[in-house]
Amino acid sequence: MRVAVGKLNRIEIDIARLWRDLEASAQIGPARAGGLSRLALSDEDKAMRDTFVRWCAEAGLAVRVDAFGNIFARRAGLEEAASAILIGSHLDTQVAGGRYDGILGVLAGLEVIRTLNDHAVVTRRPIEVVSWTNEEGVRFQPPMLGSGAFAGVHDPGWVHRQLDGGNTTFAAELERIGYLGSDSLCPAQYDSYFELHIEQDDVLDTEGLHVGIVTGGFRSFGLELCITGENAHSGPTRMRRRRNALVGASLLIARLNEIGWSHEPEGRTTSSRLTIAPNRYGIIPHLAELTVDLRHPDAAAAADMRSQFHDFLPLAALKANVEITIEKEWSFGDVAFDAKLINLVRSVAADLGVSHRHLLSAAGHDAYNISKVIPTVMIFTPCRDGVSHNESEHIEPAYTAPGVNVLFNAVLRRANA
Amino acid sequence: MRVAVGKLNRIEIDIARLWRDLEASAQIGPARAGGLSRLALSDEDKAMRDTFVRWCAEAGLAVRVDAFGNIFARRAGLEEAASAILIGSHLDTQVAGGRYDGILGVLAGLEVIRTLNDHAVVTRRPIEVVSWTNEEGVRFQPPMLGSGAFAGVHDPGWVHRQLDGGNTTFAAELERIGYLGSDSLCPAQYDSYFELHIEQDDVLDTEGLHVGIVTGGFRSFGLELCITGENAHSGPTRMRRRRNALVGASLLIARLNEIGWSHEPEGRTTSSRLTIAPNRYGIIPHLAELTVDLRHPDAAAAADMRSQFHDFLPLAALKANVEITIEKEWSFGDVAFDAKLINLVRSVAADLGVSHRHLLSAAGHDAYNISKVIPTVMIFTPCRDGVSHNESEHIEPAYTAPGVNVLFNAVLRRANA
Repeated sequence: MRVAVGKLNRIEIDIARLWRDLEASAQIGPARAGGLSRLALSDEDKAMRDTFVRWCAEAGLAVRVDAFGNIFARRAGLEEAASAILIGSHLDTQVAGGRYDGILGVLAGLEVIRTLNDHAVVTRRPIEVVSWTNEEGVRFQPPMLGSGAFAGVHDPGWVHRQLDGGNTTFAAELERIGYLGSDSLCPAQYDSYFELHIEQDDVLDTEGLHVGIVTGGFRSFGLELCITGENAHSGPTRMRRRRNALVGASLLIARLNEIGWSHEPEGRTTSSRLTIAPNRYGIIPHLAELTVDLRHPDAAAAADMRSQFHDFLPLAALKANVEITIEKEWSFGDVAFDAKLINLVRSVAADLGVSHRHLLSAAGHDAYNISKVIPTVMIFTPCRDGVSHNESEHIEPAYTAPGVNVLFNAVLRRANA
Repeated sequence: MRVAVGKLNRIEIDIARLWRDLEASAQIGPARAGGLSRLALSDEDKAMRDTFVRWCAEAGLAVRVDAFGNIFARRAGLEEAASAILIGSHLDTQVAGGRYDGILGVLAGLEVIRTLNDHAVVTRRPIEVVSWTNEEGVRFQPPMLGSGAFAGVHDPGWVHRQLDGGNTTFAAELERIGYLGSDSLCPAQYDSYFELHIEQDDVLDTEGLHVGIVTGGFRSFGLELCITGENAHSGPTRMRRRRNALVGASLLIARLNEIGWSHEPEGRTTSSRLTIAPNRYGIIPHLAELTVDLRHPDAAAAADMRSQFHDFLPLAALKANVEITIEKEWSFGDVAFDAKLINLVRSVAADLGVSHRHLLSAAGHDAYNISKVIPTVMIFTPCRDGVSHNESEHIEPAYTAPGVNVLFNAVLRRANA
């Protein structure tokens, strides 16, 4: 069977098959409360990668791995020289994350290809499914490291040297789990990138819609800060002689929280990581390492939030009598997805009668990096109450299938265009 | 040689010998910057205990160990039935502590006995040196656990069940290192308790005095708090839906710091420990465990500080949308040392021509617990800049020897009284 360009295809993806694989994935790195803890380049990540590669091989796909552990699985097109359609997301999770964040996007891509196989649909362009490495940024910062390396956002050597919080490098862990690939993949080989993802907010769930067409992202800033004070006895040392690094960190966290609240409901600020030393009773901590995050859908407002926080750094240092240095700083979300692809997804959704709306994404996604080098669009599907990065993250087949069918038809039209 | 009651003895302690043993101690559990890291019931603590027991045996002392690992080394008196003089402190240290905090007091006690031996001085009362277990409260909370158990401040079974932060109990670690003793020691066997300690503040150093006679302690309160929020994604989750445990902890830390400053120069407040989970990028922390400390020389002012902090707990919980519970709470320092012993030490210092003054201690000491059951006094010796609980903690023979000689003569007078 060959589908004519631009014509609506009534083939439907096999939601039961997709769900079976989501369930299989949920057995690899299960966390306590039914979620997943599958950190990038861990043994669990390796087990999931091996499973994914096997599924791809069973679907007849040719698998390639690049120098950052990104896995590309290719279905041939009629015109093998034509640039390919890329569909994907990530298979790593948070330390106590859900079963669907990222994983749904990769397996939905595989499901699109399996459905094409089932119906012997031949496409003009090749189609590839990709799983990007270390999207979550839990073991290695910054997040979206694999897609950033592919997109040329980061220097390859710098990516390889990133540490896991101890002394283990990204490159060493890639090698250890057998995913330090040598295949040469570059953006110019691709026509377009589609990423389907759970919404991670409650707009679709609240409004009862099946699909969110993502037009861009919240502007997001991340910082790693080092606060340096001095050890001293918690009893005799007078307040004026103290240099408590934890007090410095707490002033920053409290201020950051205020900045978020002053930009309600759209602005968000988070202190997610804080490590202090020596972290013992009776001794004033001399060291604190803090990771913070600021986001707003409006780029100017986000920059304003960031400035407010930056302005506070010397004040906090003065007040707590500590030194504060910025160890690392990053930003993402300054993206607008491809207008043609947005229109394509919208018209497919309309043709299929799937309820939809435009959205901005507050979370970071690999699509942000890829959009800098390949025309990109994202499709959101509903998740219950918008809860994510939590083991209770929940989605259901009935409100996921419409989005995957939209993805299938949008990819098909583009692949034959 | 027998010394007459009440008469000044011109025998002097051997400061070079005492210093040699302080240096030997400094080799057991050395930390990076020249200090010590010898946590209670660790392998290093065992090594130091074994060394101390050997030194005691070499000095002809009979060693006994009670059920809390407290080590008592006894020099016989003329009247063995008379209640004994007890001298001591602790041999454990902070994680990055100094070489002298606690250790000086134990080894000064041993030096007093060695000096008596050298000059064949016989005393009416027996004299014992004691090393108390887990004074610092680093591995096991609360601090001063061994002396508290001996003094009946804590239930013995409760003491044995305390955990080291993991699943290891105090009793199991005592047994592991071979110091779960079975000797029966009780306060009624003792006439008086002397503890010599470095000052840990800079009053003596600033005023150029050799001895501080401690009349009592700062009133001190300790709390362990548990702050419970909820995991969620740091991007999409709106501020109003957040339950960030780290924000709750930071509000408490910032407020506690303000309470300390509002009671300058005498009040002190410290946040020393904070552990959060999951402590990963991209996820709002759901759990924070915080240890705080409040101190003031005036009991009413200390109670007021504590009330101010207690009053803030529900406000912080409300503001950060978290739950805050008090897991453990303790206090110490509500002591007045024995008037007769204070007078004794003062008159000895005057007789020897050693410069001295009265002081309150801002730090907790085993003497606080012991003073509840045995007449007690403390002698402070100067430490440079008052720096303690820091590897750069520093004392010198020339300004330590006068205090040890005061201790020697005060013990001698009391032992023959």
